[in-house]
Amino acid sequence: MRKIEHLGIAVRDLEASNALFEKLLGTPAYKMEEVASEGVRTSFFKSGPNKIELLEATNPDSPIAKYLERKGEGIHHIAFDVEDIHAEMARLKAEGFILLNETPKRGADNKLVAFLHPKSSGGVLVELCQEAPAE
Amino acid sequence: MRKIEHLGIAVRDLEASNALFEKLLGTPAYKMEEVASEGVRTSFFKSGPNKIELLEATNPDSPIAKYLERKGEGIHHIAFDVEDIHAEMARLKAEGFILLNETPKRGADNKLVAFLHPKSSGGVLVELCQEAPAE
Repeated sequence: MRKIEHLGIAVRDLEASNALFEKLLGTPAYKMEEVASEGVRTSFFKSGPNKIELLEATNPDSPIAKYLERKGEGIHHIAFDVEDIHAEMARLKAEGFILLNETPKRGADNKLVAFLHPKSSGGVLVELCQEAPAE
Repeated sequence: MRKIEHLGIAVRDLEASNALFEKLLGTPAYKMEEVASEGVRTSFFKSGPNKIELLEATNPDSPIAKYLERKGEGIHHIAFDVEDIHAEMARLKAEGFILLNETPKRGADNKLVAFLHPKSSGGVLVELCQEAPAE
């Protein structure tokens, strides 16, 4: 876990939230990206070595739609930067953490990602992410 | 907002959670500290340039006790490192954010801190923190 790569925040309206977080962070979103497989539209802000990712649902079955329904807007997950996602997944599995993915999948921002179930990690949805190798 | 200074996580049992987060992060807590004025005991972990802060309530009126009752264990707040907390508070107030503190107060880890009300910041409890000057 080399650093907090980003913090993911669930929002209802990406454009309105982009304007709000631009005021908060003092800098505009530097990119927007849709991840169709996850049913999300995202935007990214820089905060020094870290990023803030806003997530809007693009369909009612999106994990973000379900999260908003249950909990409302707010912090959705924390993502840690890892050097070797396969090694880190094996280490955490051996430590008793529950992985939501058996193998890494491709996430936003050119990353290989995997998630830990919050019930094994203190109520916190944890994402591991590693820069994806060039294709 | 120069970086994510730390992420605050509400926990029920600090010792048990220290053991869990040591496994997760691959590194032990490097310090523990009680902030009597806030009714919390805290522990800190490093993740590169960032920290993870675990917060346990020390009395039933603690904001952490109330949070746990309402939402259970999980991510409680995000803290950003700022260079000049007074200037940042004035900037955010002018932008329409609601400050929970009129002036900075002394928090854990030798910081001057102030909070934004989540209802003005997308459901996210935001802390500003600045390294406190030597006394």
